[in-house]
Amino acid sequence: MREGHGDNQSLADDIAETIRADRTHGASQLARLALALLAEFTRHAPQRSLTRIDTDLVQLAQRLQQVRPSMAAVANLIGRWLSAIRSASYESADALCALVEKNTEELIEASKRAVIATAEQTGKLVRPGQCIMTHSYSSTVNQVFRQLAELEISAIITESQPGCEGAQLARELSGLGVETRYITDAQAGLFVKDADIVLVGADTLLADGSVVNKAGTYLLALAANDHQIPFYACCESFKQSDLNLHQVELEAMDTDEITLENLPHLQKQNLYFDITPARLVSGWVNEKGVYSYD
Amino acid sequence: MREGHGDNQSLADDIAETIRADRTHGASQLARLALALLAEFTRHAPQRSLTRIDTDLVQLAQRLQQVRPSMAAVANLIGRWLSAIRSASYESADALCALVEKNTEELIEASKRAVIATAEQTGKLVRPGQCIMTHSYSSTVNQVFRQLAELEISAIITESQPGCEGAQLARELSGLGVETRYITDAQAGLFVKDADIVLVGADTLLADGSVVNKAGTYLLALAANDHQIPFYACCESFKQSDLNLHQVELEAMDTDEITLENLPHLQKQNLYFDITPARLVSGWVNEKGVYSYD
Repeated sequence: MREGHGDNQSLADDIAETIRADRTHGASQLARLALALLAEFTRHAPQRSLTRIDTDLVQLAQRLQQVRPSMAAVANLIGRWLSAIRSASYESADALCALVEKNTEELIEASKRAVIATAEQTGKLVRPGQCIMTHSYSSTVNQVFRQLAELEISAIITESQPGCEGAQLARELSGLGVETRYITDAQAGLFVKDADIVLVGADTLLADGSVVNKAGTYLLALAANDHQIPFYACCESFKQSDLNLHQVELEAMDTDEITLENLPHLQKQNLYFDITPARLVSGWVNEKGVYSYD
Repeated sequence: MREGHGDNQSLADDIAETIRADRTHGASQLARLALALLAEFTRHAPQRSLTRIDTDLVQLAQRLQQVRPSMAAVANLIGRWLSAIRSASYESADALCALVEKNTEELIEASKRAVIATAEQTGKLVRPGQCIMTHSYSSTVNQVFRQLAELEISAIITESQPGCEGAQLARELSGLGVETRYITDAQAGLFVKDADIVLVGADTLLADGSVVNKAGTYLLALAANDHQIPFYACCESFKQSDLNLHQVELEAMDTDEITLENLPHLQKQNLYFDITPARLVSGWVNEKGVYSYD
């Protein structure tokens, strides 16, 4: 911690930890939260030279870009935010603050619009009365349900252990009046045959079209393929990464999330994400439409 | 309930419910427990005519054959037990009781020997230092671990929600000193690549070689196939069924086992077993050796 920067450094550490440890937001939501916290950091920066604010802010932004390596949306949205800050000219701390506020607000809105537009494109794949299966919680897929709730669609959704993000989706679908079957992750192979389509979000879309998403997505994709049920990845272009299968880091979370006492010779494992290879994906949807990687 | 049969009928009901509701025993263990409870029923039968004991006993045995439709071992072992009773001649209730005791003991021993012999055959597939992956709890696979624990083998095992039979296996492997990774069911696709071989037990082996086992087995088989990791079903011949894929009933259990409040428009589902098609199975092991269905 640098001298005289105690408060600022401490706030930066808190923000980085908030983003790193978050288990409740999807990648798009978390990317927006990161931007909102960068704006908050700027607002709370103590009065001092422009250079110092500027440097601290850029350092925090770069740090946040790295704390969620499985979520390209976080690094990408912050990257866009940083580019705007760097390419602008400002001559006072107040002007920088104003720029940060505007930039943050615009990018958050752009992210929300991208999710809604992606959901609208995804919705075109679903016909009235059909059954949609999904895994974990994706704000894009949830938005599809909101848009289609009136069309007598039904849902099959998984718990998604250990975080049980599926429980949150279950509550939202119940509120929307969507008839929903709620299953353990292990039952995905039993119920996929009842789905007309599988829709999943993504935390990252890799360069070759492989999909980084909550652990269990790959198993659902295998089962969908085995039953010839179409499997679509729905993710706005902010989630696109230049990385390939072998470069992406799959985040490991606290193993205390897994309910079992510690035992000799036993290691609990808690990788939160898996990779669904592009060959198992029927199509990809972003804000512009459905596309393929052929 | 028939007049004068109150106590007997009540005991029969208790026994049937014990077997029906059991969540802690594998199919082989439960089949042996059913036999032990039939013997207990005979011992506790009130003094009365041979015909009545005989009838009650056969009725209970037939009832127990039906309460676990996904576990062929239960019906099969009881079937063998019934055949022995029926083909024997006895002229007193005491003689029947003695016959039941002897028959029960012999079949329980035969079942245990079959499990051990199957585990011995299975062990031949594993080389020292290799990593075995499994799902749920199988007494046969557990016996394989006991036999091979000295050979520096390691294990990857799944929780197996909602019953978490994997936790029991974890404790036993820890006791054996087998280095074990313990994962959520959803992570099976992430870790299968680290296994040299996948071994699963079975609750029922269908006529065409398809394997009825704890839900999630099919997903693990798909992932093993996708990674070209050999996948073996290890089950003594008591688990063989004449039924095919479309005839077997997959038992549904209490949905209260799934942690989520009841919500409008939401149905929790708790199918305990799934079917792994024979095409995903590299080989089958019983007490005589490894075989195929070609």
